[in-house]
Amino acid sequence: MSIREEIIEQAKLAKKASYKLSNITTDDKNRALMMVAEGLENNTGMILKENEKDLKKAKEENMSKAFIDRLSLSRQRIEQMAQGVREVADLDDPVGDIIEMKKMPNGLKIGKMRVPIGVIGIIYEARPNVTVDAAVLCLKSGNSVILRGGSSAINSNKVLQKIINENLIKAGFPEGSVQLIQTTDRQAVKELMSLNQYLDLLIPRGGAELINRVVNGSKIPVIQTGVGNCHIFVDKTADLKNAVNIIVNAKTTRPAVCNAAESLLVHQDIAKKFIPIIAEVLNDLDVEIRGDKNAVELAGNIKEANSSDWGKEYLDYIISLKTVKDVDQAINHINKYGTKHSEAILTDNYTNSQKFLNEVDAAAVYVNASTRFTDGGQFGMGAEIGISTQKIHARGPMGLKELTTSKYVIYGQGQIRE
Amino acid sequence: MSIREEIIEQAKLAKKASYKLSNITTDDKNRALMMVAEGLENNTGMILKENEKDLKKAKEENMSKAFIDRLSLSRQRIEQMAQGVREVADLDDPVGDIIEMKKMPNGLKIGKMRVPIGVIGIIYEARPNVTVDAAVLCLKSGNSVILRGGSSAINSNKVLQKIINENLIKAGFPEGSVQLIQTTDRQAVKELMSLNQYLDLLIPRGGAELINRVVNGSKIPVIQTGVGNCHIFVDKTADLKNAVNIIVNAKTTRPAVCNAAESLLVHQDIAKKFIPIIAEVLNDLDVEIRGDKNAVELAGNIKEANSSDWGKEYLDYIISLKTVKDVDQAINHINKYGTKHSEAILTDNYTNSQKFLNEVDAAAVYVNASTRFTDGGQFGMGAEIGISTQKIHARGPMGLKELTTSKYVIYGQGQIRE
Repeated sequence: MSIREEIIEQAKLAKKASYKLSNITTDDKNRALMMVAEGLENNTGMILKENEKDLKKAKEENMSKAFIDRLSLSRQRIEQMAQGVREVADLDDPVGDIIEMKKMPNGLKIGKMRVPIGVIGIIYEARPNVTVDAAVLCLKSGNSVILRGGSSAINSNKVLQKIINENLIKAGFPEGSVQLIQTTDRQAVKELMSLNQYLDLLIPRGGAELINRVVNGSKIPVIQTGVGNCHIFVDKTADLKNAVNIIVNAKTTRPAVCNAAESLLVHQDIAKKFIPIIAEVLNDLDVEIRGDKNAVELAGNIKEANSSDWGKEYLDYIISLKTVKDVDQAINHINKYGTKHSEAILTDNYTNSQKFLNEVDAAAVYVNASTRFTDGGQFGMGAEIGISTQKIHARGPMGLKELTTSKYVIYGQGQIRE
Repeated sequence: MSIREEIIEQAKLAKKASYKLSNITTDDKNRALMMVAEGLENNTGMILKENEKDLKKAKEENMSKAFIDRLSLSRQRIEQMAQGVREVADLDDPVGDIIEMKKMPNGLKIGKMRVPIGVIGIIYEARPNVTVDAAVLCLKSGNSVILRGGSSAINSNKVLQKIINENLIKAGFPEGSVQLIQTTDRQAVKELMSLNQYLDLLIPRGGAELINRVVNGSKIPVIQTGVGNCHIFVDKTADLKNAVNIIVNAKTTRPAVCNAAESLLVHQDIAKKFIPIIAEVLNDLDVEIRGDKNAVELAGNIKEANSSDWGKEYLDYIISLKTVKDVDQAINHINKYGTKHSEAILTDNYTNSQKFLNEVDAAAVYVNASTRFTDGGQFGMGAEIGISTQKIHARGPMGLKELTTSKYVIYGQGQIRE
């Protein structure tokens, strides 16, 4: 079979499975997830053995330490994965909820029922934990899923998918509920992106390059996720002690995640006072600051930024810093350079807080809090499949509800349209 | 300027306008729409003159009667357009509504605010009324819009856009709120579809060919609309008198619209009784029936269908007819050949009605009513920009609410993430 034929076979099987999955009860879904969790724990040895193959290759290829860390599984990480599966089983199942039901003047009852999206494709990098996370979130929301993980994790992914699949079959789920693309050939992604008669949604998870490739090449609707060039604007009325705490939290607690702050905007009227303070604090925490000329003059430990810095998602202990003349300039700067993820204003001015909330174009806009809260768990939706940074379908953290769509259900007694 | 440069200029201007539009009050939007309505009425003569140019060319090119009818404006049609604009002004403005606001344990208040999508592109065929409809729906929901109408209507579209634009400027709206692509060159659509840094959504309105071209070529998220191969399944317990009424309504009241029925499925146990009845009624109404072998044997006035009939949206006085052995076969047939628009079961069996509602994959699923109700007005949402037949973002009729997205707004008092 050619790669194209192989992918089409998988897509067809996924479509068929999706019709059955949409009708499995919550109890049966939860039972299956518990079996998957147990299956992962019971096969820890086998998973570690396969993961070892991937790690060996990655080391031979001199991949970075961070890359190898993301690729690595351990007894503890497998236990965490299994625990994550159990947590998804605990979440409310959105499928079948009737969101609104109204009676029309002609007696028709029209409601909106939450239903699974259908077949979801997930394209991600070499992170084996995503294989399990994505699979169980799609399953719990009644979708079948086709997974395409980074080639460096292929052995880990194969064994994880095999364990998931075996347990689902044992639980009475249809064949094809969770599939993994077996080849590491790039052509497979190209083929997958063309199959809009079978797939209903593609979610790329990973860096900007991966996401752009999918957005540009896909005939299937795509949810863009994750790239976060997040700003914090310190207005002239901000509580500066809070500002320091929030900036430190947003920049340094996990610099490699998408909701970390990447850029500071400081109101010119407090620049002289605040920039030296924050520069010293960040300096002590080994954060490199790249600032505009004004900032460089105000503090000795700031490097001069060049124009490419404003659009950068560093994902590292680096932050850019710019002085702005007012809230309008801050908003314009954010709408120009931001990635529509999470943006914060620190202020005690009512008008500016409302202006910022209304005019900044982003999935999550904060007043006086850290951008690090943009997260499915923190927003009270449990686990998430990603953070949408586009405007269609879902915006911000995507949990189970965001993995469903709706369908109008209409109850009549013979009504015809006049 | 090259076509590409011209389209980029328009897209940039639209983006800039969209930020301002998102902050215009409902009162100001309504005032502007009333001015647009008056502007259309006051310029009836000029509109008719420009429309005449398009009609002359279309006649010279021997376009079909139906095509010329859709292209034609008249004093009355212009009045209807103006009236339509006033009706949109009357609709509730969804922008700024807070959908949910909850207080988290750490004191953060997290809500979801409805906001405009941003810049919307509408690609449509030679129907000048769409120019006005689409523009005002986008405006009322706070979006800027770039219109690309069919080339045969270019003169009509230009004058309509000019009138809309002049009145918007007079009302204080930003330049670029409603733009029309001035060239009829096809390259313009190709360029437009590539500009995902400026456009947030594309909505193609028209036939399957147009929609496929956009779905296949766009880097911008697309909402697929309108293609409706709608089925009516007459179960063995259906009230046959109701069934005749509903089928006649769904097939013959407006055969050229997307919610018209295109195919009948009849339970085998009532085929002998019901098929001759419905065949005679439809025959009297000049509806051609294309049936399977069984149907042809049961009634003299049924032509034999070939396999391509099951997937056809006739948009004409033609209907296909197939005998099925049970509700499962009906559901499988619909999920194979349907276009995810509107599907109906006529039954008095509780289990089958629920099975059909749950398992048929479509935007609107009916029990005992005509598919013709799938329409923004009938569903109580006022005017609509189209009927979505895909699963992402919005499903079914799309009104003002579906032309918005949400953004999380978070009110804090210095919270940081632990």
